[in-house]
Amino acid sequence: MMKTLFTEAVVISMEDGARPIQNGNLAIEDGIITYVGSALSLEEHDQYDEIVSCKGKAILPGFVNTHGHLAMTLLRGYADDLPLQQWLENEIWPMEGKMNAEHVSAGAHLAALEMIQGGTTTFLDMYDNMDAVANVVEHSGLRARLTRGCIGFGDDALRKSKLEEAASFAKRWNGAADGRITTMLAPHSPYTCGPDFIRQFVEKATELGLPIHTHMSETKAEVELNVREYGARPVEHLDKLGFFDIPSLVAHAVHLTEEEIALLAKKNVKIAHNPGSNLKLGSGIAPISQMIAHGMRPSLATDGAASNNNLDLLEEIQLAALIHKGHLQDPLAVPAKTALAMGTVYGAEALFLEKEIGTLEIGKQADFITLDLTQAHMQPQTDVVSHIVYSATRSDVQDVYVQGKPLMKNREMLTIDSEKVIFEANQAFENLRG
Amino acid sequence: MMKTLFTEAVVISMEDGARPIQNGNLAIEDGIITYVGSALSLEEHDQYDEIVSCKGKAILPGFVNTHGHLAMTLLRGYADDLPLQQWLENEIWPMEGKMNAEHVSAGAHLAALEMIQGGTTTFLDMYDNMDAVANVVEHSGLRARLTRGCIGFGDDALRKSKLEEAASFAKRWNGAADGRITTMLAPHSPYTCGPDFIRQFVEKATELGLPIHTHMSETKAEVELNVREYGARPVEHLDKLGFFDIPSLVAHAVHLTEEEIALLAKKNVKIAHNPGSNLKLGSGIAPISQMIAHGMRPSLATDGAASNNNLDLLEEIQLAALIHKGHLQDPLAVPAKTALAMGTVYGAEALFLEKEIGTLEIGKQADFITLDLTQAHMQPQTDVVSHIVYSATRSDVQDVYVQGKPLMKNREMLTIDSEKVIFEANQAFENLRG
Repeated sequence: MMKTLFTEAVVISMEDGARPIQNGNLAIEDGIITYVGSALSLEEHDQYDEIVSCKGKAILPGFVNTHGHLAMTLLRGYADDLPLQQWLENEIWPMEGKMNAEHVSAGAHLAALEMIQGGTTTFLDMYDNMDAVANVVEHSGLRARLTRGCIGFGDDALRKSKLEEAASFAKRWNGAADGRITTMLAPHSPYTCGPDFIRQFVEKATELGLPIHTHMSETKAEVELNVREYGARPVEHLDKLGFFDIPSLVAHAVHLTEEEIALLAKKNVKIAHNPGSNLKLGSGIAPISQMIAHGMRPSLATDGAASNNNLDLLEEIQLAALIHKGHLQDPLAVPAKTALAMGTVYGAEALFLEKEIGTLEIGKQADFITLDLTQAHMQPQTDVVSHIVYSATRSDVQDVYVQGKPLMKNREMLTIDSEKVIFEANQAFENLRG
Repeated sequence: MMKTLFTEAVVISMEDGARPIQNGNLAIEDGIITYVGSALSLEEHDQYDEIVSCKGKAILPGFVNTHGHLAMTLLRGYADDLPLQQWLENEIWPMEGKMNAEHVSAGAHLAALEMIQGGTTTFLDMYDNMDAVANVVEHSGLRARLTRGCIGFGDDALRKSKLEEAASFAKRWNGAADGRITTMLAPHSPYTCGPDFIRQFVEKATELGLPIHTHMSETKAEVELNVREYGARPVEHLDKLGFFDIPSLVAHAVHLTEEEIALLAKKNVKIAHNPGSNLKLGSGIAPISQMIAHGMRPSLATDGAASNNNLDLLEEIQLAALIHKGHLQDPLAVPAKTALAMGTVYGAEALFLEKEIGTLEIGKQADFITLDLTQAHMQPQTDVVSHIVYSATRSDVQDVYVQGKPLMKNREMLTIDSEKVIFEANQAFENLRG
C-alpha cells in the first residue's frame, strides 16, 4: 500500500477544541488517515513512499455541502431577479420539466467540476434522474449522499411508483463507489407532499435504515400555508408524522419559533443552512445563533445554482460568519471557527457521515483539501482560521483529495475534463432553452 | 501616441440603460477612451498600433472603493470576533497608536496589491501619515481620493494643527500623479469631533473647493450618543453644521429614519455602503433599498481590512446584491445590475469623479478591468451581469488598467513587487506587535 506524508502545512484538523498545527504533518495510507500532528523526524520520513511538501498551505477537511440540486447548475443566471412565484412557475419549472437524464448528467458534471475547484469533497443531492448523478460521483471521485426527491402530485398510483423508484435508487446505490455513495429518502416538502405520502417515506426510511431529508420552513408564506392546510406549522406537522423520530435532515429552517428550535434540538434534527440561496430568493435569515445556543450544530449548503448562483461552500462559510452578526447586531454571533466547523465537521454530522469524514483524525477517510496561505489577501500571518473564513476565496483551494485520491492538484483537474464538461453544459442549456 | 484596440470582449459600459455588447471593442489612446461599441472592421484595425484580443473576457469599468483605511490592512485577522469596544479600545487603537509612516506605507502597499488583484482601480483612503499613501498611489498606478482623517481630541491648538495638516495635505496632493490623486477633507465622525471642529472643516472645504467626508450613523449606540450629547441624531446634527451644503460623502449610514433618507437624498449626499464591515462588526444592515427608492445612488466600500477582512470590492457587490433581499424578504431588492452600478458608476459619483471615470464612454479615462468568463462557475453563458455579481470571484479579474496603463496583465502584477510587499507587510506587523 502506498504511504504518503504531507509535510510543512498548517494543519487544521477541525476536531473540537483543536488549534491549528504550525509545521504540521498529515499521513495517509490506502485512503485512510494514519497520522495528524507536528512534524515527524527525517528518520520517520523513510517509512513513506512519497513526501509532499505543503509549505505555505493549510490542510483542512474538505468542505461538505449538505443540500443541493446539481442539475440546476444548467439554469445558473437564467431568469434572475424575479418575484419567487414568477421565477419558479414561469421560468424554472418549465425548464426543469424538459430535463432528461442527459441534461441532468451535463448539469451534474458542471457542478462536480465547480465543487471540486472550490474544495467541496462531499455533497448531498436531491433531484430526479439520480442514476446520472451517481455516475458522475462514481467517476469524478467525489463523495455524496444522494436521494431521489419526490413531489406528491398526481394520483396514488403515481405517488406509489415514485416512492418505489426512490427506494429502489436508494438501495441500489447505497455503499457504491467504494462506499463514497450513500443514500437517503426525500419527500420534497410538506407543501408539495401530503401527510400520507410523507408518512410512507418515514416508514420506508425506517425499513431501509436510511436517513430522511426534506425542505422545511423556507419562506414565511409556506409556513402560513401549512397552518391553513393542516392546522400546524411545518415543524409540528412533520413531528406528528414521525419525521424526526428517525435520523433526519431539513433544508432551510428559516422561519422557526423558539419552541420549534427547542424541539428540533431535542430530536437531534440536522439543519442544512443555505445562506446564499435564502438571501437571493428573499426567503429570510435563518435563526442560526439561536440554534447554536440550543446546542445544535447546523451545517452549510449552497442549494441549486439557479438560486445562489454558485456552488462555492467557502462563500457560504463567509456568509454564515457575516450575516448573523449584522442581522442580530452582535459581533459575537457565529465566530469564524464556528462557521468553518459548519462547513466541515457539522456538515459530516448532518449527512450522518461523521464516523468517516468531517475532521482530520487517524482512522477517518482521507478527504482533505489544501489552501494557499501566501496570497496578499491572507497577510499578515495572524489568525489562519480568520483568514480562511473572512478573506480567502475559492481559487485559494489548491489540492483536493477524497479517499486519498487526488481530484485536483495545484488547481489541475485530474478526474474531470473541464473543457468537455463546459462545452456539453452549454449545449445542454441551449437544447433546454429550445 | 499609442493607439490600442481591445477586441472580442463582452463590453459592459455601465452607462445607464446600456446592455452588454457581445463581441465588443474598446479603443484607448493616451490614457483616454476613444471608442466603445461593436466590432470594428479589419480595415479600421489598421489605425491601431496594438490589437489585444479579449476573447472569453468581459471588459468593464474598474471597481471603485469609496471608503477605507489602507494602513489597517496590517491588522487583518488581528483580534477578530470580539465585542466592538473591546476590539477597538484594547486591540486596534493601541496598535494604531504605534503606527508611523513606515507602517502606513507597508500596509498601503499590501492593500494596493490586493486591490489591484481584485479589480479595484480607484479608492478613497482616510487615515494618518497620508503622504505615505499618496506615494503608494503614485507608483502603483492606482487612482485615489485621499484625505487625512482627523479626530478632534485634545485642545484647540492641537485641533487647529490637525486641520492645517489636513488642508496642507489636501492642497499639496490634489491633482498629483497625472491627476490620479484628488483629495478631500474629513473630520472622523460626529462622535469624535465636536460641532465647532466639524464646522471648521466645512469652512475649509468650502474655501478649498474640496468635498468633505465623514463616518456617520454606523451603530445604534453612536446615534443614541449623538442625541444625548447634541439633542439631535447625526443627520440633523451634521445638516445644522452645513455639512450637506457642500459636496459630501458619508460612510456607513446604517441607522437612518425615513425622514433622514429623504433629507440626504434632497441634499444629494453621497453614501459609502460598507456591507462586509457593517455585518462583521454587528453594526446592522443599511437601508439601501429605501435610499434607492428615494433616487439615491449609493456606492460600495470595504472599510479597513481589520473589519472586513479583505479589500475585495466584488465581494461587496455580491453582498449588496444578497443581503438586502434576505433582510427585507424581497427578491427584487438591489438587482444584480444595480449592485454592479454601485461598485462602478455610483462609486465614481460618490467620489465626485463621474466626469473622469465610472463608465466606459468616449472621452473618459481608460480605467477598466477584464474578467474571465470561461470558468466553470460562469457557465452556462446566460446573463453575464448576473454571473459577475452572483458567481464571479476576485481571481476572475485578469487585467487591470488605469489611465490606459496596465497595472496587472493576465494576473501578473506590473507595478508592484508582490513578494517584497508581502514580506515587508509581515515585518511591519511583527514590529507593531512588538
